[in-house]
Amino acid sequence: MNEFELIARLTRTLPTAECVRVGPGDDCAVLDLGLASEFVLFKTDAVVEGVHFTASTPPAKIGRKALGRCLSDIAAMAGRPACALVTLALPRQFDAAFIEAIYDGLNTLAQNHAVAIAGGETTTNPDRILVSIAMLGLVAKDRCVLRAGAQPGDAIFVTGELGGSLAGKHLDFEPRLNEARWLAGNFPVHCMIDISDGLAGDLPHLLAANALGAELLARAIPVSAAARRAAATLGAKPPLLAALTDGEDFELLFTVAGRDAVPLIDAWKAQFPGLPLSCIGKVTETPGLRLRTEHAVEPLTAPGYVHFAGN
Amino acid sequence: MNEFELIARLTRTLPTAECVRVGPGDDCAVLDLGLASEFVLFKTDAVVEGVHFTASTPPAKIGRKALGRCLSDIAAMAGRPACALVTLALPRQFDAAFIEAIYDGLNTLAQNHAVAIAGGETTTNPDRILVSIAMLGLVAKDRCVLRAGAQPGDAIFVTGELGGSLAGKHLDFEPRLNEARWLAGNFPVHCMIDISDGLAGDLPHLLAANALGAELLARAIPVSAAARRAAATLGAKPPLLAALTDGEDFELLFTVAGRDAVPLIDAWKAQFPGLPLSCIGKVTETPGLRLRTEHAVEPLTAPGYVHFAGN
Repeated sequence: MNEFELIARLTRTLPTAECVRVGPGDDCAVLDLGLASEFVLFKTDAVVEGVHFTASTPPAKIGRKALGRCLSDIAAMAGRPACALVTLALPRQFDAAFIEAIYDGLNTLAQNHAVAIAGGETTTNPDRILVSIAMLGLVAKDRCVLRAGAQPGDAIFVTGELGGSLAGKHLDFEPRLNEARWLAGNFPVHCMIDISDGLAGDLPHLLAANALGAELLARAIPVSAAARRAAATLGAKPPLLAALTDGEDFELLFTVAGRDAVPLIDAWKAQFPGLPLSCIGKVTETPGLRLRTEHAVEPLTAPGYVHFAGN
Repeated sequence: MNEFELIARLTRTLPTAECVRVGPGDDCAVLDLGLASEFVLFKTDAVVEGVHFTASTPPAKIGRKALGRCLSDIAAMAGRPACALVTLALPRQFDAAFIEAIYDGLNTLAQNHAVAIAGGETTTNPDRILVSIAMLGLVAKDRCVLRAGAQPGDAIFVTGELGGSLAGKHLDFEPRLNEARWLAGNFPVHCMIDISDGLAGDLPHLLAANALGAELLARAIPVSAAARRAAATLGAKPPLLAALTDGEDFELLFTVAGRDAVPLIDAWKAQFPGLPLSCIGKVTETPGLRLRTEHAVEPLTAPGYVHFAGN
């Protein structure tokens, strides 16, 4: 049993309740706690030393990343963050200045997005630092965007640029909260996710509910300068493959009806002139991911990545 | 700087917001998210292998304990739990059956208290298992009981029996949710906490806000059979000291006005005949904890424990 099979098995038997509108499997849990016009969004996310950051990562960036990941999940539902709790699990011999610096990074990002840090706890994790964030947000009931909802013919969009995040962006990314709320407030967004596992890893989550597929246009995929730089290293991924698979981009991936694509692009440019928005392909009735290059349309599957990488 | 000084320093600079009614320093954060008659309670708590359980702890009990600790904190505010997220941080080589058993224990306790498990995440903690629970609850605005609120002359009560939890209760305790809601619904409870650090460790949290003290009656403190059994071991704590300091009791500690003490005892016996409720002393204007024995009234301070233990 691999991790995904285990998760599938575990989530089938979880106790639920009437207040849970969306449970496991979306960017946040969606709860109806009785507010007239809003759902409560609920999310946890942890970063672990040696996995999500290293012993040499500046501590302010650890705090920033830990909170930013949760904020990115609130963004993916078009919500606004309200309040977070911080779980700091530390070796017994902690360096107080290091911990304060983790909080400095976390608090600064929280203040930028008007998020309260309402407490949390410190506990012991003898071998390494672990920071887990629990986040509450709110979203208007008629503007909550889920992962499910893609339709054949939808235009697929992505914000920002993809790939090469490990060079630095994974510690410094801006959660796309304002952009997501503007999107949901101005266009009928069919579905949305934040890209944490790479475009090719997360796009299937938008297609799975309706057993759809997608055709991506290779030259439309916004490859980051960091991915291009990394590709210059011997044996490194080609830049396009990096953009498809690197992960930790924390950009928004979403679809709108084909007819909304051009009005969206125009309105976006006026609203967010500093942030690229790219239409990278379309949703298809045929399942699976395909990549259209100048020469051909190739299937983009897990083994496909390897094939593609060798091109 | 010790851990408590660090926490004090960190919490002074945390960003807050209008929705936060009670931030760090109580059993849960108390949030006003706009519900007419209820506050939202928000809490996280983690258990770590080698700290809160061992490699030989039955996995169902790990799950049960992880969730139970959060439920006990909801109880301490007289709230009702609604929904939890589970963060499971695991070594890379995980045993699927072990993880499923953790969830079995957790789900069973959740079902007993009508708590939904709305998702969570699995992540990697290479050296040991860590289970962190994020919990949401609700409480009527006029029945939310805080740690602050003790008055001189208050009678101090504790549910159940104390001490010796490590012999088994720390994995099997029943969070006192029903009892706490009944209390807050039927008596003006001035303040409440769940005992996690031992009676002598947690009672000061009820007294600190108004710089009060307490006099405890030694023979009234409900010493558990487990604490008495443990005391038979050479060099072990005397049973009363165990009841005062062992921790992980997860019983309710609260105060009511002196005039409510007898009516409360009578009503409790009728409502919860199977669970002892003990009036263990009174709140005093004189700060500090004191213990009245047959022979004397002795100060009960951190060094005092050592003195007392030698008696």
